[in-house]
Amino acid sequence: MNKKLAVVALGGNALLRGNEKGTIEEQNRNSEETLVNLIYLIKEGYNLVISHGNGPQVGNILMRNDAGFEKYDIAPMPLDICVADSQGGIAYMIERTLKNILKQHGIEKNVISIITQVVVDKNDTAFQNPTKRVGKIYTKAQADELAQGKGWIFKQNTKDSDGWRRVVPSPKPIEIMNQKIIENLVREGNIVIASGGGGIPVYYDQNGMIQPLEAVIDKDSASSLLASNIKADEFYILTDVPFVYADYNKPTQRILEFLDAADTKKYLAEGTFGEGNMSPKIIAALNFVENGGGKSVITEAKKLEDRSVGTRITLNY
Amino acid sequence: MNKKLAVVALGGNALLRGNEKGTIEEQNRNSEETLVNLIYLIKEGYNLVISHGNGPQVGNILMRNDAGFEKYDIAPMPLDICVADSQGGIAYMIERTLKNILKQHGIEKNVISIITQVVVDKNDTAFQNPTKRVGKIYTKAQADELAQGKGWIFKQNTKDSDGWRRVVPSPKPIEIMNQKIIENLVREGNIVIASGGGGIPVYYDQNGMIQPLEAVIDKDSASSLLASNIKADEFYILTDVPFVYADYNKPTQRILEFLDAADTKKYLAEGTFGEGNMSPKIIAALNFVENGGGKSVITEAKKLEDRSVGTRITLNY
Repeated sequence: MNKKLAVVALGGNALLRGNEKGTIEEQNRNSEETLVNLIYLIKEGYNLVISHGNGPQVGNILMRNDAGFEKYDIAPMPLDICVADSQGGIAYMIERTLKNILKQHGIEKNVISIITQVVVDKNDTAFQNPTKRVGKIYTKAQADELAQGKGWIFKQNTKDSDGWRRVVPSPKPIEIMNQKIIENLVREGNIVIASGGGGIPVYYDQNGMIQPLEAVIDKDSASSLLASNIKADEFYILTDVPFVYADYNKPTQRILEFLDAADTKKYLAEGTFGEGNMSPKIIAALNFVENGGGKSVITEAKKLEDRSVGTRITLNY
Repeated sequence: MNKKLAVVALGGNALLRGNEKGTIEEQNRNSEETLVNLIYLIKEGYNLVISHGNGPQVGNILMRNDAGFEKYDIAPMPLDICVADSQGGIAYMIERTLKNILKQHGIEKNVISIITQVVVDKNDTAFQNPTKRVGKIYTKAQADELAQGKGWIFKQNTKDSDGWRRVVPSPKPIEIMNQKIIENLVREGNIVIASGGGGIPVYYDQNGMIQPLEAVIDKDSASSLLASNIKADEFYILTDVPFVYADYNKPTQRILEFLDAADTKKYLAEGTFGEGNMSPKIIAALNFVENGGGKSVITEAKKLEDRSVGTRITLNY
């Protein structure tokens, strides 16, 4: 019964894609297309924790909050509640879809979705430098008013735009609540969905009370911490490319199939992975193997069938 | 270690009250005022499952859905996703608040929130007669358009109003998903939050696949089923009155302190509990004791301190 334990982090767009409207029909189809690939791991006997992003979903929830307040004067909810809402909706969709896929494959397994708070340090330097853009695009005048009224911080959306967007801090996760429960459930053979959207950001105040925070934790970073803490053997980050590339979109672009920790750090320092959103994934993958994990894999969901595809990061070759 | 197991169902307005705006500050305060009373049960050694309503919250989520679609063309989510969202947000608020209350009382206990699907019969007669009003008030013209476009059903809001509201079926719950996991977790001494808002309504299609439904399951009915299935000893329905009354608001009004199953059924048949929302609670309480539960209690949260307050329903005197 000493099965391998893997944490699989699904990108936010595994369910809701940027080039789509995000209707429920699209989300259901995307979920199924992504999740069916987990069967390869399950059939090999892995125990699985599934985490997921929530970027497009929580963005929509924030926009609806604004619209509901403006149109019907419905009290808007703070970001921590919006993240919790998105955990509920997304986990349900994953749970239902995956249960059906399991049934189609004749596999009997529970799928359990746990709402997850993630503790950060209130003095994390990220709070001095909020970087994560969330919610709707405002005019300068609206942004100034909200900045004054609510203390929100805004950044110009792009260089050539008049739009302003709220930015929130993205602090480092330091504790996954209920991680022991998650570990117990998964080691008993259940599939557990947890730490969605990077987790609901909270901190401990001077009295040890849990307090909410308006922040967005990087989901790969939170998933990496969870994977380390529950002593997972492998950590999968599923994204929209089959491999990590060096010099992506340059003439020197090349596939990176195997990386050890030393090379990974060297490439990170040299900027080999580019400016995009690949670096945080690689750091999360690296942290996992440096904290005792066996192997991190960055690839596309549909490449899980062929286990020789994907960028595999290990401590040493 | 043979502790008593209780299921406690919180009313939707335990957290968000009808006479308030529903700001996060109000919801936090209400949550704390309600949940602090659970300490009396916890200190007596009860293991607890907490369920909760979601009426005001899911109503707000639906209204925001409408506003977000009208204002920003954001794809609206179906009712099952809205219920799942509300489970996430509400469970998080309960979990965080209760963890803090436990800490203040020096009690070490995990609090775990499980997203819960609840299976109903797609041929439930409730689907022929939708009764539960949800979401915003529309004009007749808007309602007609939505009825045609989406197949929604509308009823006039009140006799003397031009408003029309969508009505959805309220089918009987027949299976609580993951109930064995919930039972195991609570019998290990963890507090479990589950089956929020009556659960996310789903059914099994002819191939055994889980399919979503646009419905709202009565939360007391779902909580009663959960309590029976996990063999709880006691079932508490917390509402806004200390007792159930016979002939409520009539000159003959009187407190009902103890009820056996036979009297409860007689009073239900005679309409003694009135037309309001007390009857579904009493039916849920009755079902629990008829299905083997020891005792159902209907009372206010703040009356839990004095365990001789509240209407107590047992199979026999």
